[in-house]
Amino acid sequence: MAQINDHYLKLKAGYLFPEIGRRVSAFCEANPDAQVIKLGIGDVTEPLAPAILEAMHQAVDEMSQHSSFRGYGPEQGYDFLREAIAEHDYQGLDVSADEIFVSDGSKCDSGNILDIFGPDNVVAVTDPVYPVYVDTNVMAGRTGEADDAGRYAGLVYIPVTAENDFTPALPDQDVDLIYLCYPNNPTGTVASRETLQSWVSYAQERNAVILYDAAYESFITESGVPHSIFEIEGAREVAIEFRSFSKKAGFTGVRCGFTVVPKDLQGKTSCGKNEAIHPLWNRRQSTKFNGASFIVQRGAAAVYSEAGQEQVKNTIDFYMENARLLRAGLEAIGIRVYGGVNAPYVWLKTPGNATSWDFFDDLLTKAHLVGTPGSGFGASGEGYFRLSAFNSRQNVEEAVKRFQGVVAS
Amino acid sequence: MAQINDHYLKLKAGYLFPEIGRRVSAFCEANPDAQVIKLGIGDVTEPLAPAILEAMHQAVDEMSQHSSFRGYGPEQGYDFLREAIAEHDYQGLDVSADEIFVSDGSKCDSGNILDIFGPDNVVAVTDPVYPVYVDTNVMAGRTGEADDAGRYAGLVYIPVTAENDFTPALPDQDVDLIYLCYPNNPTGTVASRETLQSWVSYAQERNAVILYDAAYESFITESGVPHSIFEIEGAREVAIEFRSFSKKAGFTGVRCGFTVVPKDLQGKTSCGKNEAIHPLWNRRQSTKFNGASFIVQRGAAAVYSEAGQEQVKNTIDFYMENARLLRAGLEAIGIRVYGGVNAPYVWLKTPGNATSWDFFDDLLTKAHLVGTPGSGFGASGEGYFRLSAFNSRQNVEEAVKRFQGVVAS
Repeated sequence: MAQINDHYLKLKAGYLFPEIGRRVSAFCEANPDAQVIKLGIGDVTEPLAPAILEAMHQAVDEMSQHSSFRGYGPEQGYDFLREAIAEHDYQGLDVSADEIFVSDGSKCDSGNILDIFGPDNVVAVTDPVYPVYVDTNVMAGRTGEADDAGRYAGLVYIPVTAENDFTPALPDQDVDLIYLCYPNNPTGTVASRETLQSWVSYAQERNAVILYDAAYESFITESGVPHSIFEIEGAREVAIEFRSFSKKAGFTGVRCGFTVVPKDLQGKTSCGKNEAIHPLWNRRQSTKFNGASFIVQRGAAAVYSEAGQEQVKNTIDFYMENARLLRAGLEAIGIRVYGGVNAPYVWLKTPGNATSWDFFDDLLTKAHLVGTPGSGFGASGEGYFRLSAFNSRQNVEEAVKRFQGVVAS
Repeated sequence: MAQINDHYLKLKAGYLFPEIGRRVSAFCEANPDAQVIKLGIGDVTEPLAPAILEAMHQAVDEMSQHSSFRGYGPEQGYDFLREAIAEHDYQGLDVSADEIFVSDGSKCDSGNILDIFGPDNVVAVTDPVYPVYVDTNVMAGRTGEADDAGRYAGLVYIPVTAENDFTPALPDQDVDLIYLCYPNNPTGTVASRETLQSWVSYAQERNAVILYDAAYESFITESGVPHSIFEIEGAREVAIEFRSFSKKAGFTGVRCGFTVVPKDLQGKTSCGKNEAIHPLWNRRQSTKFNGASFIVQRGAAAVYSEAGQEQVKNTIDFYMENARLLRAGLEAIGIRVYGGVNAPYVWLKTPGNATSWDFFDDLLTKAHLVGTPGSGFGASGEGYFRLSAFNSRQNVEEAVKRFQGVVAS
C-alpha cells in the first residue's frame, strides 16, 4: 500500500499567485474590455540582452557539429560559468569556483537544499516571506498545521514591518536554519552590514545555518549595502547563498541560478559529529540533478562579458526607474511606501488600513490594476501590498495615474 | 545546531561513473599516447537534428522582442509541448496533456518523485539497476546501511540475470513502490506485455505504485514490445511513467524530460485514506520547480514535427546499427551478449568468469577500451559488463577489432 507524504496535506490550498490568477481571470471574463495592468507577480518583461542572445545562438550552433557537440555536462555547472561567477560576483571575496553550483533556478535550489538537512531542525523565517521557504519546509515535515492566519506550528516567524523598520530581530529561542532574503522579496528593503553581522554572529554561536537568498542583489543602487552574505566576517562558516539570473538578466523563462556552499560550512550528525555541507550538496546535485542546459549556461556566461554587463545594467536601470516612478507617484498621494530603491519591489501600506485582499479587489475592480496582497506573504504582511517594477514604462506611468485616480477619489 | 540529513552518510563513496572517470584519468595520465575509446557512460555523440536546432534558434529570436518574449512559463510545461507529447507518444492510449509534466530531465524526476511519498514505503528495485533509484531512496531514509556487495538493508532487490532470462519475478513480500525500467538500463533487455501485466496486476492487488522508466522506449525496434506502461490494462491506477529527450533526441546536454502521472492513481495517507497522486506532484513541481527552459521546450516540440521525427529516427537507427555491430562482433568471438536489439546497451557476460572490475581494468589496459562494470549497477550485475552504442561508427568498428584482439588472444 503506497503511502503518500502526508505533510503535503497541511499545505494551504491556494498558493498566492494561483489565487491572484483566479481572481484576475474571473474579473477579465466578466469585463472583457478592461485593460488590466499587472504589477503582481515579479516577472521580467524586457527582452534578453543582445550579448546573451548571441551566445545562445552560438551555443545552438555548437550543438550542430560533432566537433563541438556537448552531451552531459558537469552536474555542478561548466567551469566557464562557475569561474565567471567567482570572478565577477565574488570579486575580492573568499568564494572559489568549486563552491558555486549552477542550477536551473533559485526556486529549485532553495527548495532542494532541504534534502541535505535533517528533519528536526528548527526553522526561522521572516514574516512576510517568499512562500517557497515555508511551503518546502511544510512538505519536508518540519511543521505542524497552519492556523487561520497561515502560520504553521513549529516554524519561528520573525516579523519585519514598518514598526521595526523592516529589521528582523534575533530570535529569542534557538533556531537551526534561518532564511534571510536581501534585497528582500516582498518588502523591497535591504539589510545593513550591521544587521547581517548580528545574524552571522548569532549563527556562529548556535551552529545555525543561514540560507541567504540574494536573488535581487543586482538591483542594489546604494553604496554600502551588502551584495553578498560573504561580505560579512565569519559567513563562510554559517551561510549558503542563492543567486539567480532570473531577475538580473531576464532569465525567468530561460532558467539559470546558482548556489554557493562554502567548504568551511559544517552541520552536525544526529550523534553530534561535525560534517562538511559542501560534499552533501555536491552529492545531492550529482544524484538528483543533471546540470543546467548547456545553451542556457552559455547565455548566463555572456552576462559577464563586457557588452553583456553593460546591457544587463541598462535593463536593471530601466526597471529601477519604474520603481522610482511608482514610489514617487504613490508618495504624491500620501501612500506610505517602502522598498523600491535597492530592489524592484515597492511595498506599500494600504490606504485606510484596508486588508491586503480588500485593497487587491478594490484596485482590480476600480483601476484594473493587479498587485500582490501582502498578507499572501505572511501574517505580518497584512495591511501591505506589493507592486513590481517589472513592466513597460507606459504601463507604469498609466498605473500611477490610475492609482492617483482611485486613491485620491 | 543545524543537523544534516544523516542518511547521506550511508551512501557508498563512489558513484559508479566518477569511479570509472578516476580509473580512466589515471590510465591516460600514465599512458598519454593511448587512444582510449569510451563505451562507458551512456551519453549521446551525434549532433542535434536540424529541425531541433532551427526551433531553438527561433526560440532564442523570440526572446529578443517584447512581443514574443517569454518570462515564467507554466511549471508543468508549455501546452504546445504537453499536447505534442500526448498526441505522438501516447497516441491511442488514455493519457491526456494535463497528466504530462515537462521537466529538465528524467534523472531529476525519478529522484524528485520520492518527495511525494511517505518514508515508510517498502521499495523494490531490479538488480542490476540504474543507481539513481537506489541512492535517492537511501537519501530519503528508506534504507539501512549497505552490505559489502552494495545491497542496502530494507530495499527489496529482484535479480534479473541470464538465469531468469532477465525477467524480474514478483516479490514474495509486500512492496509499495516498484521501479521498473524498460527497455532496461543497464541490461538492454525488454519486458513482454505479459510480464508488465503481471506487475500491474500485482500493484493493483497491493495498492502499490510502479515507477516506470521508459527513457529508452524510442530504441525499441521489435514489434509487440510495449513502449509505455500505459499500454497495459489497469496501469493508469498504479503507474507513473518517466520519459526523456536525452537519448531519444540527443538532449543529454540540452535537458528535457517528462513524467506522466495519471489522474486515476491514488496513494494512502498514514490513516489509510485514499489521496490522488496527480495534485501532489503538481504541487511539488509548482513549489520546487519553475518549468523547463522555454528554448529547450521549443526544441523538444520540434522532435514531433514531420522533419524532426524523421531526423531523430535516423540518428536512433545509426546508434542501433552500432549496437548490432557490437553484438555481432562479440558473438563472433564467443562472448554471450544480451540487449542491444531494443536498447542502445549491450550487456555481456565477462569471459572466463572475470569479475566486472577485473574485466574493466583488463579491457582498459590491454585494449584501451572503457565500458561499465556490471557490478556497479548492483550485486547481481557481477560478472557482467555494459557497452553503450552511443559512439561514432569508426570507434565502434575499432572497438570490436580491439575486443577481438584481446579476448581471442
